Amino acid sequence: MKTILSACLSATAALAVLSLPVAAAAQSRSTAAVIEDFQPSSLNQPGQDYPQVNSQGYVRFRVHAPGAEQVRATLGLGGEGGTQLHKVGDGYWEGTSSGPLDEGFHYYHLDIDGAVFNDPGTLNFYGSTRWESGIEVPAHDADFYAVKDVPHGQVRQVLFPSPSTDQHRRAFVYTPPGYDRDPTARYPVLYLQHGWGEDETAWSVQGHANLIMDNLIAEGDALPFIIVMTYGMTNVVRPGAPGGLSSFDIAPFETVLTRELIPYIDSHFRTLPDADHRAMAGLSMGGFETKLITTRNPDLFNYIGLLSGGTFSPDDIAATPQFRDKVKLFFVSYGSRELERRNTAPPGMAAFDPVGNAEGLTAMGVNNVFYVSPDTAHEFLSWRRSLREMAPLLFRD
Amino acid sequence: MKTILSACLSATAALAVLSLPVAAAAQSRSTAAVIEDFQPSSLNQPGQDYPQVNSQGYVRFRVHAPGAEQVRATLGLGGEGGTQLHKVGDGYWEGTSSGPLDEGFHYYHLDIDGAVFNDPGTLNFYGSTRWESGIEVPAHDADFYAVKDVPHGQVRQVLFPSPSTDQHRRAFVYTPPGYDRDPTARYPVLYLQHGWGEDETAWSVQGHANLIMDNLIAEGDALPFIIVMTYGMTNVVRPGAPGGLSSFDIAPFETVLTRELIPYIDSHFRTLPDADHRAMAGLSMGGFETKLITTRNPDLFNYIGLLSGGTFSPDDIAATPQFRDKVKLFFVSYGSRELERRNTAPPGMAAFDPVGNAEGLTAMGVNNVFYVSPDTAHEFLSWRRSLREMAPLLFRD
Repeated sequence: MKTILSACLSATAALAVLSLPVAAAAQSRSTAAVIEDFQPSSLNQPGQDYPQVNSQGYVRFRVHAPGAEQVRATLGLGGEGGTQLHKVGDGYWEGTSSGPLDEGFHYYHLDIDGAVFNDPGTLNFYGSTRWESGIEVPAHDADFYAVKDVPHGQVRQVLFPSPSTDQHRRAFVYTPPGYDRDPTARYPVLYLQHGWGEDETAWSVQGHANLIMDNLIAEGDALPFIIVMTYGMTNVVRPGAPGGLSSFDIAPFETVLTRELIPYIDSHFRTLPDADHRAMAGLSMGGFETKLITTRNPDLFNYIGLLSGGTFSPDDIAATPQFRDKVKLFFVSYGSRELERRNTAPPGMAAFDPVGNAEGLTAMGVNNVFYVSPDTAHEFLSWRRSLREMAPLLFRD
Repeated sequence: MKTILSACLSATAALAVLSLPVAAAAQSRSTAAVIEDFQPSSLNQPGQDYPQVNSQGYVRFRVHAPGAEQVRATLGLGGEGGTQLHKVGDGYWEGTSSGPLDEGFHYYHLDIDGAVFNDPGTLNFYGSTRWESGIEVPAHDADFYAVKDVPHGQVRQVLFPSPSTDQHRRAFVYTPPGYDRDPTARYPVLYLQHGWGEDETAWSVQGHANLIMDNLIAEGDALPFIIVMTYGMTNVVRPGAPGGLSSFDIAPFETVLTRELIPYIDSHFRTLPDADHRAMAGLSMGGFETKLITTRNPDLFNYIGLLSGGTFSPDDIAATPQFRDKVKLFFVSYGSRELERRNTAPPGMAAFDPVGNAEGLTAMGVNNVFYVSPDTAHEFLSWRRSLREMAPLLFRD
């Protein structure tokens, strides 16, 4: 009942929120003067001064390319192809975005006379099936994923045998603070998937999943649980090359996850190995995978989350009768700008009406929560916030 | 006695080895035709065909840079400034090293008309205080760090409180296979340091320390122990910017390691918290740090390793009388090409005579092993092999 109520409230709040950010963003983009308080991005390589971000969210790039004719950063406002840089002497190029960017993490790269390179100033993050430059526009609510003086869990790299792919595969496993203290305690597990073009590093690096959980647990807002993150793009077009969404076949990843990884985790970690203590969630393509795998394996997961990755409609629930009686939570979220644009539904998804679907599920008496991240798009701040909203609801029944 | 004997044998073998690689390398570089069996480097980004390596160790680069006037990869034979690439159509540049490179891992980057960028084809690795491109020339003995069907340990990212630097700092902790199985078992610990310009990721990524240990343990060649890897360049020239070697002050890192990290590890992992079960080793600058810290804290570590990072001389031992009676092993190693060139002794080190020093220690009855990695320079294959040689000798007494 608590979650049903909160679902209604969340859906209502989301609709209220939806009317605000467009106007606010448009106003700030057209009228604000650029404040010269730029600071190096928190994601810069050690000792690198650029790129920089100011208090309004403008981004300033500075790149050394003495022989270049044209330098562009692919990050900027929509429709402008990014930010053009101009020569400023000594072989350097500089440019400032034509408006403030959304808060949070953004991927980008440089275009140097038609060639794609990363910005030597920043750390690299795996997105778009390549290691990309990244920049962080500080969010006003960044405190929830800050490194605080609280007990910290661990992020463990494990190699698990995968006979179906004839290799050992990598997963990262978040174990909550105190996991090693009591050798008899057992924990629920969330299987958490990245998006298309990302990999198993995304949730703990770009996503700060470990810090979000450390902080929620320290505040008593979430139960301690394990998170397992592995690579979900098992469909390849040729050895080593990730496949596209249009040719996506869920079977290979479903096999890795349900036949190989889950048994490995249950035998190598102190889990509570049943559906009441197992969740699956994913962002974007990871949500698409989550919906497919949980639907095809209704006995495995009793908590399900789709983050910018589709929704469950009343028809979906009706088509999977086991869901209605046993699934404890359907969590669906989007960034508000995704709902404004309504153009990001993954191919093959049902009609894109997440608000209507949430209301329909609630009317059916199905436990569901619909969350909208204010003023964010199909990017990682939406998903950090979604994890913050979803984690406290998991494994409560 | 066993280790003393093996020290003598190792030193003798090293001297024998020293006379071989120069001639062999010179011959292959001048007379061999390039065999067209190039394959993508194992360190390429997913789906990337270049750079490539052939069976002789030649490296071929291919980069898309349609507007460039000159493209160079900084990797090649000494004195030639790397490999010049030439236009091959469609905006691509290609070039092959003028000779075979040493086996193992190499850092490099691209110079595009005087600008420094990474090769978009490869993964990035932190070296030279920046994330660099990397390439792997398959080693004939690469089997010892291959991913095999053996039990695998974990590499755990931990955040430990560091009051002296007013932050939580990151360490990676290798726990051996089976660590989680018996909650009463306790393990020795090796503190293992990276080199100048690298960071705490180096040993488990470039170094494959986890795989080397998994394989040694599976074969029964090493006792299972924990390895702790953290960032050793605590001297900074300004916030976030690593300092140079010339201004190096060991005190800040010594404080982090001995007052903060060791107590954290001993309280959060099941260690055997005494000097007989604690080792410190490091490569290059990490060896320099190891010598300083073990000398200043003779009660903490009874196993010491310097990998391409200086040696202990008879005078050093005489100046630290506690060492002679209690240290169970001094392990010193170099790549054979370092001994050929004799130009890589870190500043401030004693006279560079590792062979003479090893013989002097042996004559004093001090347990020591001197290992020389055949046909490698100041690079990671020397250090992978050094770990393989050192690990079986640790914690045996």
